[in-house]
Amino acid sequence: MLLYDNHHSGNCYKVRLLFAHLGVPYDRHELDVIDRSNRPAVLGDLNPALRVPTLVLDDGRVLAESDAILFYFAEGTPYLPEDRFERAHVLQWLFFEQYSHEPYIAVARFWAIAGITPSDAQREEKRRGGRAALAALERHLASRRFLVAERYTVADMALYAYTHVAPEGGFGLGEYPHVRAWLERVAAQPGHVPITA
Amino acid sequence: MLLYDNHHSGNCYKVRLLFAHLGVPYDRHELDVIDRSNRPAVLGDLNPALRVPTLVLDDGRVLAESDAILFYFAEGTPYLPEDRFERAHVLQWLFFEQYSHEPYIAVARFWAIAGITPSDAQREEKRRGGRAALAALERHLASRRFLVAERYTVADMALYAYTHVAPEGGFGLGEYPHVRAWLERVAAQPGHVPITA
Repeated sequence: MLLYDNHHSGNCYKVRLLFAHLGVPYDRHELDVIDRSNRPAVLGDLNPALRVPTLVLDDGRVLAESDAILFYFAEGTPYLPEDRFERAHVLQWLFFEQYSHEPYIAVARFWAIAGITPSDAQREEKRRGGRAALAALERHLASRRFLVAERYTVADMALYAYTHVAPEGGFGLGEYPHVRAWLERVAAQPGHVPITA
Repeated sequence: MLLYDNHHSGNCYKVRLLFAHLGVPYDRHELDVIDRSNRPAVLGDLNPALRVPTLVLDDGRVLAESDAILFYFAEGTPYLPEDRFERAHVLQWLFFEQYSHEPYIAVARFWAIAGITPSDAQREEKRRGGRAALAALERHLASRRFLVAERYTVADMALYAYTHVAPEGGFGLGEYPHVRAWLERVAAQPGHVPITA
């Protein structure tokens, strides 16, 4: 398989992390996340959103959106519950991640990596949204070891991806002890690989 | 079941539309989308994101995130393909909707409904993102009747919800004939209900 990838991207890291757990072989094609001018030429026929990760399977079929890729490859493995309602809860957290977490924490981190200086209003919007997402995680993890079904699933991988690098976006984790303990549990899973792998 | 709902919300409408197709009975509890001060008290123990829709099942279990609710209730019905890869493509479009479509088109429409005047920079950001999402849909639908597997699925319901009211957010659909034809196909489905139902 061929993964259109970026080494900074937490969205791409989610896929690399699951593939490491599953021992799935694949090739990587690095795309720039700052200069995106070649996206229509490279991804135009593959992914309507022109985003990474985009995955080309061995038979040529294409799948995009990090969390859709996670759900697809986790089915039938220990990383997705069998129970239908628990699977729905995994999806709930995957959608939470893309709507209420990534647009704040990942974007603030991207600005730092790319050397972009936001306006005060933009910075404040990201700060408020990111802190709300971390507070939601903290509340949920206060009484749980993992996000769903008390086991390590793709929901944890998806939320781990940008939470563990949240400080790079200016989000200190000092106020979130349950989040920090959960990050350590995720990083201690057998087969774990870092975002730099 | 009890749906925490809002009659303006396209995210809530997705659920109401699927439930209409399925003939599923449920009660509605309307929440304000402008004054959200009661959200922690009402939804604090139900949904970490404090958003509508939030659904309480008859046995008291809770499911949130509109597209997770769609996927869960569509399983085993004509509105979700049996094939695993086609189901992954449905998820791809559901994630596209929440990341690349809703934050632009739904938010611009919300500003209009709530009487909020954005800054020029905010307005331009929404305009650019919303037009990119509509262009992606137009390109995909140029050669297809529905988003996935040439049949009406929850992917179409999810994207229909805010696309058909995009003009309320200032997005004219004149440039997108394939999108307009698809909206008509969706609205012509047996059992379709409007957002005002």
